[in-house]
Amino acid sequence: VSGEREASGVAGVPSPVRLSGDGRTVHILDQTLLPALETILDLGSPAGVAEAIRALRVRGAPAIGISAAYAVAIGFAPEESGLPTRVDREWARGRFQELATLLAGTRPTAVNLRWALDRMGRALETALGDPADPTAADLHRVLVAEARAIHGEDARACSAIGRLGSDLLPRPTDRGELRVMTICNAGALATGGIGTALAPVYHRHARGEPVAVLAPETRPLLQGARLTAWELSRAGVPVTVLTDSAVGAAMALGRVDVVVVGADRIAANGDVANKIGTYPLSVLAATHDIPFYVAAPTSTFDPDCPSGGEIPIEERSGEEVRPSPDPSAPGAGPTVWNPAFDVTPRERVTAYITEVGIARSPEELGGEP
Amino acid sequence: VSGEREASGVAGVPSPVRLSGDGRTVHILDQTLLPALETILDLGSPAGVAEAIRALRVRGAPAIGISAAYAVAIGFAPEESGLPTRVDREWARGRFQELATLLAGTRPTAVNLRWALDRMGRALETALGDPADPTAADLHRVLVAEARAIHGEDARACSAIGRLGSDLLPRPTDRGELRVMTICNAGALATGGIGTALAPVYHRHARGEPVAVLAPETRPLLQGARLTAWELSRAGVPVTVLTDSAVGAAMALGRVDVVVVGADRIAANGDVANKIGTYPLSVLAATHDIPFYVAAPTSTFDPDCPSGGEIPIEERSGEEVRPSPDPSAPGAGPTVWNPAFDVTPRERVTAYITEVGIARSPEELGGEP
Repeated sequence: VSGEREASGVAGVPSPVRLSGDGRTVHILDQTLLPALETILDLGSPAGVAEAIRALRVRGAPAIGISAAYAVAIGFAPEESGLPTRVDREWARGRFQELATLLAGTRPTAVNLRWALDRMGRALETALGDPADPTAADLHRVLVAEARAIHGEDARACSAIGRLGSDLLPRPTDRGELRVMTICNAGALATGGIGTALAPVYHRHARGEPVAVLAPETRPLLQGARLTAWELSRAGVPVTVLTDSAVGAAMALGRVDVVVVGADRIAANGDVANKIGTYPLSVLAATHDIPFYVAAPTSTFDPDCPSGGEIPIEERSGEEVRPSPDPSAPGAGPTVWNPAFDVTPRERVTAYITEVGIARSPEELGGEP
Repeated sequence: VSGEREASGVAGVPSPVRLSGDGRTVHILDQTLLPALETILDLGSPAGVAEAIRALRVRGAPAIGISAAYAVAIGFAPEESGLPTRVDREWARGRFQELATLLAGTRPTAVNLRWALDRMGRALETALGDPADPTAADLHRVLVAEARAIHGEDARACSAIGRLGSDLLPRPTDRGELRVMTICNAGALATGGIGTALAPVYHRHARGEPVAVLAPETRPLLQGARLTAWELSRAGVPVTVLTDSAVGAAMALGRVDVVVVGADRIAANGDVANKIGTYPLSVLAATHDIPFYVAAPTSTFDPDCPSGGEIPIEERSGEEVRPSPDPSAPGAGPTVWNPAFDVTPRERVTAYITEVGIARSPEELGGEP
């Protein structure tokens, strides 16, 4: 644990993940401790980063993609990997496979994780394709550069999403504040930049246009109440926390102008896997004629996944939900069902806000993604 | 605190409230301590009962109506009220007004509270209308009898709701279990009998017909995870707890056959105030062609309230929702909006299950309610 931190792009909010200057240590803000404690973990091994992803110390689809890329990079630091000075190509490929398997196995739903690992693998192959045998230091340098590129591109994608989304979101006709409902945390803490769903909010706020956020607390782990409320308060954006059950009343009472959510994976047909509770938001938004936007970088689009039905949905431990047990309960007592994500069908999405443009469907984004 | 308890009508589940044999003490199961501790409070004053209602030690619209009636009764026990042997009618009316004001002010939304107080007031007036001056003991006896009658009628209403609801609910064609989603706790712990929403479940279970319940945890106070899961487990009914956000995924994945909820007040036009989160359930149920039933005794219908817009919705303290505060947060940090109820419009209700019959609208129930 060190005090080292780096701005996320939002004043007052540290970056959730960064790589040390020497490419040997991943610094992760432990989000399980927020808002009570602001602790940066210094992780010197890929296994440490994998544990941090699995335990949600770092979370958010873009941020875990970046973290996995950094984990691969530090896994090729000569001391860490035990690489010889001149590289055996098969050894390097084996090492990468081992790291990719470790990291891909941490969480199944966010496609950014696999996407980042694929990019790291391609960068490694390019380096290994050089007719001159690369040195271990060469490979490390290439992989560090690629991981930093992934991080930098995500930061730029967030900024573009903020700019495009800010133009897209409604403007209150009465010059009052725009009231944005989100879910979970798709802000600076979830990305390499200023966030996805919250990026348009920060953009409006930076231009002095009044904006306020409604943050459902997001059970069971309270990413809304703990993280979204924290980072928006740090940034000076007014935020109101409500229970996940109160989202319907908020809309029915006219307290919501627009819903903007992030995504963990968007299938080829446009179906969106995102934090559990997103699907109810989309249905309620449609009932109340409130626009429902999904903000995500193109790295979250998975052209290999035909529809939402094929997206693997992580089910987490019932212990996250279970209240203090009743010692006198006979038999097994209640079971718990704790899916971490749900699927919002494409027809519920008003538009996708990406770094390459606003689209009514993934097809509109063109060949890439 | 005593060990005294009385069956609720559901084996293994104590009654949430009862009156001592001498009509001087109200025994309340402290539901804020469940499931960890099963504690019965012995309350000898109306103010103690009012505190228990306000703090949700006893909750559920029918149960708080019964509790308020018992509080009035013990408020007329000679030692408690300081009543003279021969009664001054104006003194008695003043005493009742004082008690009714205290009790009606505890919680605003459930109409059963006001309904029970009105009945107690009418019983008092009848007694005072006797040409022979009543004694203090006479008044106490009359009010104890009326409060017990309210309790007994509620128990019978629950049984009738169970029988009628059990006939109404779907029967799985594959002879598998019927999967009932509810919200909060509208079971034995919320009533003077076997519950409202859970009464049909207990009825099916008692007949050996397989039934299972999906219980959203019901933030912020977890009445689903703490109370519904507890009482159903005690009764041997399979129950699965899920987060309030997971109700949409459960329906989309085909895990729900029917939704049955209780009510805190049903307006003259059929709009239903019930635990926050009920309205989203109703919208999602309609989206998935799942029947949505409201189970409530006629004492929950308020003919004086034209529509849901006129039902007062209790907003409770933000402290119930707020996570551990961030000591380093600048300024005020996030605000919290914590409504305890929402309003489900009549058109979302497939039918009302009452003790006098199944109705598509309050009008169908006839002149009474």
